[in-house]
Amino acid sequence: MQCVTGPYNQLDPTDLAPIFAPATVAVVGASDRPDSVGQAVFKNLLQYGFRGTLYPVNIKAKSVGSVRAYAALADIPEQIDLVVIIVPASQVLAVIPQAAAKGAKGAIVISAGFRESGPAGALLEQDLLAACRQHGIRLVGPNCLGLINTDPAVRLNASFARRSPLTGHIAFISQSGALCTAVLDFAAKKNIGFSKFISVGNKADIGELDLIRYLHADPQTKVIMLYVEDLRYGREFIETVREITGGDNPTPILAIKSGRTSEGAAAVSSHTGSLAGSEAVYNALFEQSGVFRAQTIEDLFDTAMAFASQPLPRSNRMAIITNAGGPGIIATDVTINSGLRLAKLTEDTNEVLRSHLPATASIKNPIDVIGDARSDRYQAALDAVLNDEGVDGVIFILTPQSMTEIEETANVIPALARRSGKPVVASFMGLLDVSTGVEILEQNGIPHYQFPEAAARTMSALYQYSCWLHRQHLKEYDLTVDRQRVTQLIGQAMAAGSHYLGEIEGNEILAAYGFPVMPGALATSEDEAATAVTRLGRCAMKIVSPQIVHKSDVGGVRIGIATEEAARIAFREIMAAGHKVEGAVIRGVLMQKMAASGVEVILGIKRYATFGPLIMFGLGGIFVEIFKDVSFRLAPIRRNGAHHMVRSIRAFPMLNGARGAALADITEIERCLMRLSMLATDHPEIAELDINPLLVHEDGSGCSVADCRILLSPPTEA
Amino acid sequence: MQCVTGPYNQLDPTDLAPIFAPATVAVVGASDRPDSVGQAVFKNLLQYGFRGTLYPVNIKAKSVGSVRAYAALADIPEQIDLVVIIVPASQVLAVIPQAAAKGAKGAIVISAGFRESGPAGALLEQDLLAACRQHGIRLVGPNCLGLINTDPAVRLNASFARRSPLTGHIAFISQSGALCTAVLDFAAKKNIGFSKFISVGNKADIGELDLIRYLHADPQTKVIMLYVEDLRYGREFIETVREITGGDNPTPILAIKSGRTSEGAAAVSSHTGSLAGSEAVYNALFEQSGVFRAQTIEDLFDTAMAFASQPLPRSNRMAIITNAGGPGIIATDVTINSGLRLAKLTEDTNEVLRSHLPATASIKNPIDVIGDARSDRYQAALDAVLNDEGVDGVIFILTPQSMTEIEETANVIPALARRSGKPVVASFMGLLDVSTGVEILEQNGIPHYQFPEAAARTMSALYQYSCWLHRQHLKEYDLTVDRQRVTQLIGQAMAAGSHYLGEIEGNEILAAYGFPVMPGALATSEDEAATAVTRLGRCAMKIVSPQIVHKSDVGGVRIGIATEEAARIAFREIMAAGHKVEGAVIRGVLMQKMAASGVEVILGIKRYATFGPLIMFGLGGIFVEIFKDVSFRLAPIRRNGAHHMVRSIRAFPMLNGARGAALADITEIERCLMRLSMLATDHPEIAELDINPLLVHEDGSGCSVADCRILLSPPTEA
Repeated sequence: MQCVTGPYNQLDPTDLAPIFAPATVAVVGASDRPDSVGQAVFKNLLQYGFRGTLYPVNIKAKSVGSVRAYAALADIPEQIDLVVIIVPASQVLAVIPQAAAKGAKGAIVISAGFRESGPAGALLEQDLLAACRQHGIRLVGPNCLGLINTDPAVRLNASFARRSPLTGHIAFISQSGALCTAVLDFAAKKNIGFSKFISVGNKADIGELDLIRYLHADPQTKVIMLYVEDLRYGREFIETVREITGGDNPTPILAIKSGRTSEGAAAVSSHTGSLAGSEAVYNALFEQSGVFRAQTIEDLFDTAMAFASQPLPRSNRMAIITNAGGPGIIATDVTINSGLRLAKLTEDTNEVLRSHLPATASIKNPIDVIGDARSDRYQAALDAVLNDEGVDGVIFILTPQSMTEIEETANVIPALARRSGKPVVASFMGLLDVSTGVEILEQNGIPHYQFPEAAARTMSALYQYSCWLHRQHLKEYDLTVDRQRVTQLIGQAMAAGSHYLGEIEGNEILAAYGFPVMPGALATSEDEAATAVTRLGRCAMKIVSPQIVHKSDVGGVRIGIATEEAARIAFREIMAAGHKVEGAVIRGVLMQKMAASGVEVILGIKRYATFGPLIMFGLGGIFVEIFKDVSFRLAPIRRNGAHHMVRSIRAFPMLNGARGAALADITEIERCLMRLSMLATDHPEIAELDINPLLVHEDGSGCSVADCRILLSPPTEA
Repeated sequence: MQCVTGPYNQLDPTDLAPIFAPATVAVVGASDRPDSVGQAVFKNLLQYGFRGTLYPVNIKAKSVGSVRAYAALADIPEQIDLVVIIVPASQVLAVIPQAAAKGAKGAIVISAGFRESGPAGALLEQDLLAACRQHGIRLVGPNCLGLINTDPAVRLNASFARRSPLTGHIAFISQSGALCTAVLDFAAKKNIGFSKFISVGNKADIGELDLIRYLHADPQTKVIMLYVEDLRYGREFIETVREITGGDNPTPILAIKSGRTSEGAAAVSSHTGSLAGSEAVYNALFEQSGVFRAQTIEDLFDTAMAFASQPLPRSNRMAIITNAGGPGIIATDVTINSGLRLAKLTEDTNEVLRSHLPATASIKNPIDVIGDARSDRYQAALDAVLNDEGVDGVIFILTPQSMTEIEETANVIPALARRSGKPVVASFMGLLDVSTGVEILEQNGIPHYQFPEAAARTMSALYQYSCWLHRQHLKEYDLTVDRQRVTQLIGQAMAAGSHYLGEIEGNEILAAYGFPVMPGALATSEDEAATAVTRLGRCAMKIVSPQIVHKSDVGGVRIGIATEEAARIAFREIMAAGHKVEGAVIRGVLMQKMAASGVEVILGIKRYATFGPLIMFGLGGIFVEIFKDVSFRLAPIRRNGAHHMVRSIRAFPMLNGARGAALADITEIERCLMRLSMLATDHPEIAELDINPLLVHEDGSGCSVADCRILLSPPTEA
């Protein structure tokens, strides 16, 4: 393995096998000292029943946890696959070459005292990573809780977690070690099982992306949960994860990202010293890679439970079965508000329901089997709706009433659900009386929620993922661009030391990428202005001076100039106004053909060091400034992305013929967004770019760039 | 007691004493039949330990639950305060006069088969109510689960709930009986205690408002929770409840209202046959009456627990204490997003924290006591921040790590919290390991949440209520209106059979209430048009014809007419255009002085049968139509309400000088909203009214009504 210098190291996921499924593990810093981390980790490894061989390494002890200890790695009589390191930070580095000498391919560094502790620790971490790279060792941590693999063939609990997880199908990757312990505790009570459990710590080497790639190939893992405070890659994350969540053999990924508010982000940086990305970037990142973003930890679990056990609904037509009106109404509200619909039952289904339910029951969806329903009535209703072609999933609600058969009813669900191939989620309301029923549901893979709201929300998440999997891939536009010309223009500007490009250079750059810029010319005399207006027709005239940014404020703008005479007068006035501005070098007056009127939209680029260029779209003026009604994507985008960007602003109806207005040329906006993405991707010197406004004309009549500005800066290594 | 015909019967709340605290209770329909409701109710009454005397009434049985039974009420040897009725619906009516004969003042009718079952049941319910009114009996139900009073001096469980609640300070009023059973189950596990528990059923007589008034006077009740599907009063609810939530001796009220979506509302009407109000009305209703609207059942409980045990924060400056970074960040995000702030700790507090916490701890808020913190470190941190004048409340987070002292830490909180007089909420994350600690918190009145998000959200609810209690009452505007004139104008229009009033009559009505209408005159000849323009100045001219609603479409509008000549030409053209419209009677041309330009806003009235007039405010055009950016209040409003309406739209910055625009005349908008409220309240014939647009000029320059329409209809009994 080589030392990696590029941004993200697309290593073979089998690289992680020595870490997740080693045959031999050495624990450097294993200890019998009460309450020490070295004791906790070794005890976990031993008690969880690791299938391979464990070697404690402790310079002083003869044995640890009754297992013969070795003073140094070198003393161990066989090859070691994985070393788990718990010694003080200052001693960690020295362990790596020793581990390499024993053939180790993986290391889990639990010790803290690295990047999170300050500049000295950060240097130590750099050295640690370099040593690992040099010796071909992949590294988890440092500063982490460790890692757990519940695979019965491995049973590796290389962590100091208080509690071991049940075996299951959810993989959990967490940037917070403490959250891991809380989550294990929570999951134990809820009968939630895990496949792998990884605390990534400082992510010096192995981060979320490596783990996602490994877990995607892991047959035990059906769904991946992430707790993220920061991510270090944008483009690679999207490209890799999009394939994993949406390609063949898809694995759903659910994430919770904290540090949303600026205060939360401040807490992040004091906590991990890592860069907190902005909300917009993360939303774009998750959306583009098909990752479901949970709002709360509870939401994350609720959703994961359903993904781990339920098939996806084909569409959004839901049936609700309940033995009480109120909870049925509550579930209906949440169902509709989360983008699902109530299924319209067929006449056959109605017939079956009528024959099994009493006259007072409601056979209209939501189906109310009435408070005195025993399990047979529930069974008949569930069977009927699952057999209905027009039902894509079922939300099953039970309230504990005097006649309610809680366990029998719970027993009815799993087999019917499984046979139907449709998702079923349940809410047995309450905690005590229903607990035996809940236990039956949980152990038979029916996701259960205390209240019907969460059940409906979860069903909506399943449906959203189904939409992602079956999304249509629009045919790409065929766009030609003159990349070389822009490279040249940017090179010239940078060489001349100009980092702010106004309309003249900006329009040249945009024109080279096929943007609909308005023809124009720089006039340096009255005559040139007059000639230009004859050639171009009705013009706007704007002063050109690097020193004058707010052109209107100094009297440097005229619009609607249509005659030679008017052009001459305007030229004289503009130049005179310009010369009054102290220190301004006046290059002349830009004569630009005036565009037809249209809806004003804004297109923009903003480049982030970690994530690359973010593309923005929104309606101009107040819509951006007050309503913040904009959509974002990280470049590069495809047509699907552009399509979605345009349609995801709330003001989209204004482009789509609302209030009797003409339909705007939406496909041309999409093409402009694609061009913008190409420009941003091809030219890393473009730090910021605004087209404000782009005038969008009627459908078929295209768009016109009415103003633009570009900010250049030397590209940084991502 | 008299038969009530008015909308809401403001009876003395002590009327409900015989229902909540009877000395003698007869149970008509008590039974030993297994699984019968009659058995369940009598068993609950007996086993819960009612402090008074119970009499089962059963026509056949000699005894019920080993208690001597009576064949009829008349046979009972003493006066009865409360009858609980469980006999079939058809037999219920006959019980009422018998109960009255025994002196009963209250009845709980558990039996179903009334309004919820169809038209025949609805008639039966009417008769039942009439009988109760005639005999001076207050009625809970019919079609309900019953009622529980946990007061140790009473201990009345007149319900067929499977489970009895713990004694506590929360009163729960539910329109869904099934939800009651689920809630009791949930509450038992969470150690949540109740003062009173009422299933209101069909609310034939006693509804939420009566109960709220009674519970407000109940010393045992500290907070009231409502589950509502529909409410039957608007104005009375607001007026009464506003005093209860915000007056002296305030009682906080929390509500969950289901049937939000139209599908949910459809389920309501099939469920209870009751009218579902629109979302806007309920939001206005709750907001105006100071009721906190919970989003989910879980949210309702989370919030109630805090209200039942915690003091209110004085302001929104929160401290977060945690032993783990990740959860601290999560809590910070939710804290900020729910309108709270992170407190800035004083240098003294920092000093204390520094002296008690290790160097690696974060003493900046959120305070991270670090994973190896034992209870002493938590105690020092909590004590320090509670003593800080700049801290209004504390969110206390614990994750179960290897050194964590869960019980000891839990024991630290209650005394410190109580002594400080500041609210403290906790999240001990996880379920199993932390359960002993959670138990300690719950039993000592520290609200506990599984995850920190809910803890932070709850703190925000406490703060919102604190804002409500301490809200400033703005001095009312002094507005004079000519009510009689409008009564006369409306009377004339109704007499003439016209229900749609356009600008001429509309402006007269508005002018009588002091709205800034533009002076105008109806011209029926060229000469009149010319005279008018001389008198009024620059005019808009609009055709006047009851048949022509869309005046512009037929060429019936001219603007900016400034000279006599132009007025003559415009008059001729408009009349000619009008005469081309088949069947249109042309009354002439309205000459109206043109208003100065301004920001376009919309003011409106829409009257609802149950709730009275709803007042609307929003910015014109796209803001209403696409962004739905409007605010609502039920009339009457005071200046506080008008103030809030204007400021609660998202586009408010457009009126408030955003983007360098001039400040608009906001106080004049407020005055117009007050006038609108008076107009709506004084004249029940106004079914709908739109002022669209009202032009709002610069601050100090007032507003101008640019167009209006009014729809009249005969007032209905609310």
